[in-house]
Amino acid sequence: MVIKIALIQLKISGPKEKILKNAVDLIRIAKKEKFANLVVLPESFNCPYNEADFEANAEEIPAGMTSQALSQAASDFGVHIVGGSFVELCDGKLYNTCTVWGPDGALVAKHRKVHLCDTKIPGKLEIKESKVFTRGESYTTFQVGETQVGLGVCWDMRFPEFAAAYRKLGCDLLIYPAVCDTYTGEMHWELLARARALDNQMFVAFCSPARDPHATMVAHGHSLVVDPWGQVLQTGTEFQEIIVADLTLKTLPEARSQIPVLQQKRTDLYELLVRKK
Amino acid sequence: MVIKIALIQLKISGPKEKILKNAVDLIRIAKKEKFANLVVLPESFNCPYNEADFEANAEEIPAGMTSQALSQAASDFGVHIVGGSFVELCDGKLYNTCTVWGPDGALVAKHRKVHLCDTKIPGKLEIKESKVFTRGESYTTFQVGETQVGLGVCWDMRFPEFAAAYRKLGCDLLIYPAVCDTYTGEMHWELLARARALDNQMFVAFCSPARDPHATMVAHGHSLVVDPWGQVLQTGTEFQEIIVADLTLKTLPEARSQIPVLQQKRTDLYELLVRKK
Repeated sequence: MVIKIALIQLKISGPKEKILKNAVDLIRIAKKEKFANLVVLPESFNCPYNEADFEANAEEIPAGMTSQALSQAASDFGVHIVGGSFVELCDGKLYNTCTVWGPDGALVAKHRKVHLCDTKIPGKLEIKESKVFTRGESYTTFQVGETQVGLGVCWDMRFPEFAAAYRKLGCDLLIYPAVCDTYTGEMHWELLARARALDNQMFVAFCSPARDPHATMVAHGHSLVVDPWGQVLQTGTEFQEIIVADLTLKTLPEARSQIPVLQQKRTDLYELLVRKK
Repeated sequence: MVIKIALIQLKISGPKEKILKNAVDLIRIAKKEKFANLVVLPESFNCPYNEADFEANAEEIPAGMTSQALSQAASDFGVHIVGGSFVELCDGKLYNTCTVWGPDGALVAKHRKVHLCDTKIPGKLEIKESKVFTRGESYTTFQVGETQVGLGVCWDMRFPEFAAAYRKLGCDLLIYPAVCDTYTGEMHWELLARARALDNQMFVAFCSPARDPHATMVAHGHSLVVDPWGQVLQTGTEFQEIIVADLTLKTLPEARSQIPVLQQKRTDLYELLVRKK
């Protein structure tokens, strides 16, 4: 099976019902008109990323309206959906959670953001997710065809060990729904995607919302898909659009045999321990 | 102490004596005219990188003429020299070795390339260093002022764990003398330098020879220095030149406190073990 991935660089504004309807419309287009079999939404896709709104927008999974809309869309269109992230309420705690829905509408995976974003760049960016969210406690993988996919949410992308662990766990594709501000986005967005891809010789996809200059957090945009050579396959603008890429899976063994870094690692000098809970 | 680093993007052709004289001239200029206090040469700087020539060019360290020239230059000009690499002969074995000389002419460190380059990209590149060289067995660090510097040679740059280990060992600057071909250089050279710098929030310098279109291995050039934000401070062309950069050391605590990824690592999920021999 060939993976045709579609990143929905969603415009996120207005009431939640309207955003969900727009998302579902674009999922339909990605599947029906662009023939994607794996559709990805951005982080915090059902409401603009804003600390003040997280609690009010929290939903239980799979009971809430966002889960229901994603499940319905997945089964209506017969497509895998990586449902970006939204605020999950569970046992009184909030999580920044990515849900994955199979073509039959079933919830096939759920990733709670493992590395919460606490950062303070004077005059540019200040976020303290750990005030609001509880962090996730595990790796999350799911399968599309024969391909094992690893999930991260935004800040998770900054941790090379986390991506390398997914490679060790057998993944060939990493997907990170994300909202990155324009300042760090300009500096780090493409660099991080390409570095994770090259160092681990995997496909990597970052999915951002479209840029809304009026938002509290103005997203970088430029969703992209990178191949196992670290080369950008497809990338987007700042606007709402669907970025589609064919993942040519034979690139994986080619890259890995031609530059056999995995076999050349010096485990006598260093070793990445992966602790699966 | 501020580090002013100079990367000597050396033209490497002709007899060894002539190459050494050119290298020493450029070291003098880097110190006396550009006021560098840390001067770096590229990999295989005393003869063009060519498997067929390695054995004939091998030297004992510090007895050989290349060591002597570097030691003399370091003490004559009162500068730290990272002597790129050349072929070391020791106990009948060959190593791809980087020597470091202090301002008094003393050998302060010696790094034997830890990851040998074995790669085969059909129609583009084929190298099998493991046929010729014995690999190094350790990390190598040295100090310039209060800054701990970690060393790698070329292919070592492809291993994120190796760079991360140096950060754990207290380094703030990584230096990789290297010869990268133009094909992988175009794809990976700047990406690897920026990734190592950003992921570890260190300064990173890659020093290449100048491009010689007639060489067996045509070097990428574009020597560069990257800061702890992953941003390129200075970069070169393809021609012989000296690339100079001031390493503003306060950037280190700034980057590390504003994006505190080291404190945010999930050692309950992964951990890099560093084995020092």
